[in-house]
Amino acid sequence: MARLKGFQKLTPVDVALQKFFAALQIKQSKTEAIPLHSALNRIIVEDIIANVNLPRFDRSAVDGYAVKSRETTGATQFKPRILQLTSKDVVREKQAKQVWTGNPIPRGADAVVMLEDTKQIKNEIEVWSTATPNVNVSKTGEDVRKGETAVVAGTRLKPQHLGLLAALGTSAVNVFKKPKIAVLATGNELVEVGNELKSSQVFDVNRLVLSSLCIELGAETLDLGIARDDVDAILRKLKLGLDNADAVITSGGTSVGGSDVVPEAVNKIGKPGVVVHGVAMRPAMPTALGIVNGKAVLVLPGNPVAAMVGFEVFARPLIFRMLGMKQAEARFNLQAKIERRIAVALGRKNYVRVRVFGKKHELFAEPISARGSSMISTMTKANGYVVVPENREGLEKGEMVSVQMFDTIELVDDQDV
Amino acid sequence: MARLKGFQKLTPVDVALQKFFAALQIKQSKTEAIPLHSALNRIIVEDIIANVNLPRFDRSAVDGYAVKSRETTGATQFKPRILQLTSKDVVREKQAKQVWTGNPIPRGADAVVMLEDTKQIKNEIEVWSTATPNVNVSKTGEDVRKGETAVVAGTRLKPQHLGLLAALGTSAVNVFKKPKIAVLATGNELVEVGNELKSSQVFDVNRLVLSSLCIELGAETLDLGIARDDVDAILRKLKLGLDNADAVITSGGTSVGGSDVVPEAVNKIGKPGVVVHGVAMRPAMPTALGIVNGKAVLVLPGNPVAAMVGFEVFARPLIFRMLGMKQAEARFNLQAKIERRIAVALGRKNYVRVRVFGKKHELFAEPISARGSSMISTMTKANGYVVVPENREGLEKGEMVSVQMFDTIELVDDQDV
Repeated sequence: MARLKGFQKLTPVDVALQKFFAALQIKQSKTEAIPLHSALNRIIVEDIIANVNLPRFDRSAVDGYAVKSRETTGATQFKPRILQLTSKDVVREKQAKQVWTGNPIPRGADAVVMLEDTKQIKNEIEVWSTATPNVNVSKTGEDVRKGETAVVAGTRLKPQHLGLLAALGTSAVNVFKKPKIAVLATGNELVEVGNELKSSQVFDVNRLVLSSLCIELGAETLDLGIARDDVDAILRKLKLGLDNADAVITSGGTSVGGSDVVPEAVNKIGKPGVVVHGVAMRPAMPTALGIVNGKAVLVLPGNPVAAMVGFEVFARPLIFRMLGMKQAEARFNLQAKIERRIAVALGRKNYVRVRVFGKKHELFAEPISARGSSMISTMTKANGYVVVPENREGLEKGEMVSVQMFDTIELVDDQDV
Repeated sequence: MARLKGFQKLTPVDVALQKFFAALQIKQSKTEAIPLHSALNRIIVEDIIANVNLPRFDRSAVDGYAVKSRETTGATQFKPRILQLTSKDVVREKQAKQVWTGNPIPRGADAVVMLEDTKQIKNEIEVWSTATPNVNVSKTGEDVRKGETAVVAGTRLKPQHLGLLAALGTSAVNVFKKPKIAVLATGNELVEVGNELKSSQVFDVNRLVLSSLCIELGAETLDLGIARDDVDAILRKLKLGLDNADAVITSGGTSVGGSDVVPEAVNKIGKPGVVVHGVAMRPAMPTALGIVNGKAVLVLPGNPVAAMVGFEVFARPLIFRMLGMKQAEARFNLQAKIERRIAVALGRKNYVRVRVFGKKHELFAEPISARGSSMISTMTKANGYVVVPENREGLEKGEMVSVQMFDTIELVDDQDV
């Protein structure tokens, strides 16, 4: 009796993404108010409109003396203007007041002469240069104007955003709750790290890798452990995940040739179940995209590299949407010269792992060759992907390619690339 | 009585770094053994040498049938070879055994015929194509060879490194302890966010920004709060920091014109004290680099942008060294076309904030103009720095520049940059 030989029809990557997200209809994530000092890397819910000007008052941009600018016109070291020092909060005719960087400009003054351009003699100063109006003054609202949008909704709060919010006096922010992603590995051959391996067994790699990738994006994870290749066992774990998390990512048990137990279990749990199974990509072709009760179930292949590529293509955009971001954060793209010809299959989107390195002011991308997608070491040797589109059979040596970087670059000859 | 007017002599950035690190002599960081699943983004202490081959055994790279390759020579769909299926762990003459991806290759077999190239009829299969020796077999040690260095000492453990270590069966790793950095803000005008501002006061921005920057690099922080511009008050806080942390970063109170209370306090605490004060850079010129009892004290300016740039130039390399990394992680450098002419002062290294964006397959860098370095909004609008060297007076419009990215890029027209 002949088995089903491979997938009847592979869905192109773009169609798969479109179909999946159209069916998923991600609900707005829940939000929570947290103190500003705990908000690093969280996603802000609403636009933050400045409720004050920054600076709040005209202030000195330098150390020096606040003056009436018109009283300094024509001053030089040889023709100094003499001004009386005052300690009051107002500068009157022929007066000056000492100010440090950040100090408010006293009433009556409209400019600051830098310390270097003056000489203090008792309680007078010589002014040695002409101060034009507003010179060395940071004007009210020059940094941020009251009513201006300071931080846009959906921004990931980096240190500089926290700084701006602190300057505005924001002590708490509304952020999206971290989505919780349940992670399950399936496979009879899998053993948890730390235990004894029997012959023909291997340690589970994907749970740790997929969880770590989720955490790096800012999600929380729920560890569903390892399930054997058994539809009911998987179904129980999936249910646990769907009940206690916002999405589930699995690895293994997706191949139509072997045991496609996970897609079967997904279809058994609820509607619509698997909406895409088999994607025109390499690696990660046997990926299945499922939805159960409005929650995403990403069924990634068991091969570690395929699981990582499947995560890159499907889980990354999913998690960014769940995080409440307007769009996925682009990976840094670098233009590099491919070091060696590579051949790939037509009709599939190929994710070629490369190692980008700098040499003599040029960037090169070395394909990290691998037989099959089980070679986890190719991911530690590579630092980026080149995506070869469906209509290309490969890349020519010396061709400039766009590399999506997932790790840092090693500079061989110099730092100046 | 005239005050000291500005710095007598500015130290070039490179000299400042060299002088500081030569005097500092960073001690090897302490280490700790932690479970692999807690090791994301930690820095590994020793080379990890593979103690086994990966794969551990010859295994099938596809779903299909393990065969003796020589028995398939010349097979086609119209001239199939017939083999007997066996369920034993050994393949004898004219036999084949079904295998799924990842299964061990049974003794006696040396190749796998893909499912698609076979037809099963009862307990026989027709083989439709020639299998060459080792085809569709992942050979023992093909991924990682026993004795090979799998992960190099000083590597930051990303998801893929954790995956490789898991595959090797590593359940715990030695990592460097997170350095603890004490952060202090100084300034009479500073108020903690959440409190009421009086006139001429501002909210403290730098403590939150500098702490967040430390955390992003993988350090821990100790909050020393805000100190008034008073040498003794600062000295007490510095002592607390030096007693309880591995380094101290301060902001404010560095300017020679105004009150350079922090460098004074550093010199009072211990030897050698301040080794550099005043750097030929803009912003962050008044930066002071100190060392007390072998611990670094970075004295950054109070202006938020200057504090961030000072952190970038001095604290980043310091923390990478304290983390135990071989070298600082390079920021992603992008080549972009500068959108507008900018003028800078000769003789200083200028850190120009720019916003890089993609448009019609080109990258542009828009200088984010600012008067002075107090404009925190310039850091949220910018996503990178252009470093203009000491011997340049500016950048010409249209010039290609190298941008060190600190935030993501917004793609305007297309994704394909």
